[in-house]
Amino acid sequence: MTTATFQWPVRVYYEDTDSGGVVYHSIYLNYMERARTEWLRSLGFDQSRLARERGLVFAVSQLEVKYLAPAHMDDQLMITLTLAKRGGASLHLRQEIHRVPDDTVLIRATVRVAMLDGHFKPTRLPSDILPWG
Amino acid sequence: MTTATFQWPVRVYYEDTDSGGVVYHSIYLNYMERARTEWLRSLGFDQSRLARERGLVFAVSQLEVKYLAPAHMDDQLMITLTLAKRGGASLHLRQEIHRVPDDTVLIRATVRVAMLDGHFKPTRLPSDILPWG
Amino acid sequence: MTTATFQWPVRVYYEDTDSGGVVYHSIYLNYMERARTEWLRSLGFDQSRLARERGLVFAVSQLEVKYLAPAHMDDQLMITLTLAKRGGASLHLRQEIHRVPDDTVLIRATVRVAMLDGHFKPTRLPSDILPWG
Amino acid sequence: MTTATFQWPVRVYYEDTDSGGVVYHSIYLNYMERARTEWLRSLGFDQSRLARERGLVFAVSQLEVKYLAPAHMDDQLMITLTLAKRGGASLHLRQEIHRVPDDTVLIRATVRVAMLDGHFKPTRLPSDILPWG
Repeated sequence: MTTATFQWPVRVYYEDTDSGGVVYHSIYLNYMERARTEWLRSLGFDQSRLARERGLVFAVSQLEVKYLAPAHMDDQLMITLTLAKRGGASLHLRQEIHRVPDDTVLIRATVRVAMLDGHFKPTRLPSDILPWG
Repeated sequence: MTTATFQWPVRVYYEDTDSGGVVYHSIYLNYMERARTEWLRSLGFDQSRLARERGLVFAVSQLEVKYLAPAHMDDQLMITLTLAKRGGASLHLRQEIHRVPDDTVLIRATVRVAMLDGHFKPTRLPSDILPWG
Repeated sequence: MTTATFQWPVRVYYEDTDSGGVVYHSIYLNYMERARTEWLRSLGFDQSRLARERGLVFAVSQLEVKYLAPAHMDDQLMITLTLAKRGGASLHLRQEIHRVPDDTVLIRATVRVAMLDGHFKPTRLPSDILPWG
Repeated sequence: MTTATFQWPVRVYYEDTDSGGVVYHSIYLNYMERARTEWLRSLGFDQSRLARERGLVFAVSQLEVKYLAPAHMDDQLMITLTLAKRGGASLHLRQEIHRVPDDTVLIRATVRVAMLDGHFKPTRLPSDILPWG
């Protein structure tokens, strides 16, 4: 199993905030998916090509999120991702969102993404996707 | 040509606002599309069925928007829509967003939506879609 | 403790979907917050007034979400909410998203919302907010 | 008047697309605002600091957008911005969205942003903001 942590920077824009003055709570999920997309890309997997050529899509099947502190407009954030387990038909990930530069942890999450076929049915992870996970 | 005005109510939620304390400027476009979707539905056209059964999608091709006053969290809004012209391959609409109950006009817009085929190429409006427009 | 279930209808629009053909996973959180907002409103609490007059805001502090089946463009959904527990400074809610009319459960979630003061610090729930919870 | 063009790269993620398979039409406005935010930052103006320290916010007051071709999941885009005119209380900008690497123009827009005070009333641009514009 890989224990390496992937990191992806994200900047907060107005579109991400709400009138409470902080980032809207569902937007952190978008940030975490950007990091998953870039992590897969860094491993050679374009999700749009996976869908087009092999009829495979990843979909979030389970989430646990702890909101520890809020992010604000203009904040520079770092999204982290660690593969906790490669199941037969899903990946279990740990993700965090940190504020740069003081490295405060804002979000701690576990995310399970399922491998789905073209009919949105769970299917086995192909052997070339994270075979060592 | 029909000169009737279609109306659709929308409530403002936190997700729609930004840290400036008002509705984020691109969200008004979403509100206006909800009204277009409901207007088409009221005329018997489900966009998901149009896409699935006839390979036809509407897509915005041109927009002009004037932002006159902002909407806030919890505001009750009314979105209006008038068909200005039915072109051969597009619809020209006038839309407004009003705040209820004082009826302040917040947004004035003209929106052109093009009829596209399954390859995102402009195509003629079928004769059963707004033949009188 | 109240065991009544509050319900709020939501329609799926294009803005909510992604190129996988289904509702984007973070949007369900927005739907669930709309139901919380309307539930509070039904009990006499406008969140914008709570913030303005008493400096109090609710913020999600913890989430667990199970994605059981996807929603699609044009789907009519029903969002449900049950108060599981009224803590000293937070509310624990159970929420579900059902597809109408076949009543398929799409989402099961537990959501904890914390009461925060004007500095985003946890504070006690005022005695007039759900005193019987 | 400056005729320099500012550029800002944006990657398309699932959150940005809709079930038509392309980027949702209002999301391009978010992309264009990210470029405006980064352009102001490159000139030394943090919008969150402008708001906090001087009670000044920029708000879109007028938009014209032509949608020429769609962007897709995983596309790498370049957002451009040229200052067309510095009015007394607003900036007039020309913005485009290009697809990298073939440089197809997807969007052409003109955007007017007004300088507003803490009460959302138009106010004069301070003399240190783009004095040469």
